[in-house]
Amino acid sequence: MDSPLRSVELTEVTEWEDGQIRSSSDDLAAEEPLQILACGDPLVVTMRTPGHDPELAAGFLRTEGLIESRDQILSIHGQESMEGQAGNTIDVELRDGVPEREKPQRNFFSNSSCGLCGKASIDAVRTRGLRALGSGFTIVAETLCSLPAQLRAQQSVFERTGGLHAAALFSADGDLVVLREDIGRHNAVDKVVGWALLQNMIPLSNYVLLVSGRGGFEIIQKAIAAGVPIVASVSAPSSLAVQLARELNLTLIGFLRGRRFVVYSCESRCLVRH
Amino acid sequence: MDSPLRSVELTEVTEWEDGQIRSSSDDLAAEEPLQILACGDPLVVTMRTPGHDPELAAGFLRTEGLIESRDQILSIHGQESMEGQAGNTIDVELRDGVPEREKPQRNFFSNSSCGLCGKASIDAVRTRGLRALGSGFTIVAETLCSLPAQLRAQQSVFERTGGLHAAALFSADGDLVVLREDIGRHNAVDKVVGWALLQNMIPLSNYVLLVSGRGGFEIIQKAIAAGVPIVASVSAPSSLAVQLARELNLTLIGFLRGRRFVVYSCESRCLVRH
Repeated sequence: MDSPLRSVELTEVTEWEDGQIRSSSDDLAAEEPLQILACGDPLVVTMRTPGHDPELAAGFLRTEGLIESRDQILSIHGQESMEGQAGNTIDVELRDGVPEREKPQRNFFSNSSCGLCGKASIDAVRTRGLRALGSGFTIVAETLCSLPAQLRAQQSVFERTGGLHAAALFSADGDLVVLREDIGRHNAVDKVVGWALLQNMIPLSNYVLLVSGRGGFEIIQKAIAAGVPIVASVSAPSSLAVQLARELNLTLIGFLRGRRFVVYSCESRCLVRH
Repeated sequence: MDSPLRSVELTEVTEWEDGQIRSSSDDLAAEEPLQILACGDPLVVTMRTPGHDPELAAGFLRTEGLIESRDQILSIHGQESMEGQAGNTIDVELRDGVPEREKPQRNFFSNSSCGLCGKASIDAVRTRGLRALGSGFTIVAETLCSLPAQLRAQQSVFERTGGLHAAALFSADGDLVVLREDIGRHNAVDKVVGWALLQNMIPLSNYVLLVSGRGGFEIIQKAIAAGVPIVASVSAPSSLAVQLARELNLTLIGFLRGRRFVVYSCESRCLVRH
């Protein structure tokens, strides 16, 4: 049986260990395509883990710059499948329709709601109109070190499947505000941003975004679009992510493990030099 | 200074450890957009780690079903940048032009050369015309267990940056044939497939593909497109990957660590039950 959210699927597998073969059951992270539409127009097909689809759709529209605030959304409705479950199509009704400037060039189709899809040339990468982040927010280094353990403790689907990425928002005090999981790194971030949008919390000027995977370019792009001043990760960022973070004043932290981390940009938000 | 392949970039960072702050240098995995064109038509923009771009372009065209064999490629040429380095645009000249059936619906733009990009509806996922794999190839379980250590030993850029995915082909005897690294899992696979295509080795009926990341749907789709009968990974596959592998007779192996692995489909290629 599927779980209500269909985020986990049980299957029969065969295990080999030291020459011994045995049959067993295994939980798999669910992966299904989701088509996101805006006012009935197909925007994107993304491979995602079912669950929190309205947040994913709202977050995608926000981090891709199609909307700014919750007010612009009239409704979000998915198609139900024959079994009455949420389906794989979701439509976001916008108050003023799809922004005209987005229409001609976008028509994007992405894997894992990535931010570069649909851009017909490389030139488009830097012309998203993203603004540099303000520098008011700070966090204590010791607090940062406490975040990964909280993320792991809350990653329920990962525990069962070993196969999901997570993204989570934390306050300056290190309190977990929201956590979302997805087979795609970008989707996990979009679900978090979408949740925040629906709570009217954007821009997320007073929060840290922790991601389980690498800090790549699109992750940073999405964080800046949502106004997040600090992005931290347990692993390595890419060169382009660092470049973008430096240009737009985002604090990018990598290798956040135990009592150590590396700061790639804008260290004043988390380090006090004496 | 950039390395000739620009796959690694050096940058200044700040390290925090146990309250101590120090400046140091860090190698970053390079990430840059690459625009792939076919006969001058823009096909896709993908975020990739520079290096082996012709293989990436050839592999993308093959795993996306635009070409079948090397014969169809007249030339692959990149634009050089002002500094004489390979640029971020690469054009594949095809003998018979871009297949007509691909033109209207594709126009895809992807993150990390994923296989779903540009498909305007979910229906398109299963209509790639992929064929079920033949069952001739087998590998000994003990040999499978030796592969991850070989992959790690050869991952030169990962060693320096901690930030790259890898994909590699192995023979039935467990010999490493080719390994490619990239910031994107899909790109690493496309580089391997592109290498094989340029060597006239496709279909890859007698090889195992080992990937460093999860076995997701698109990875399996690309493997089947290249005729690879076995895909192995050190981590978990997704539900849709398992479903596709079972339908098209691919052996999908997960959690390949130490002397243990899990087989999700078509176990007869690697397990002998007594």
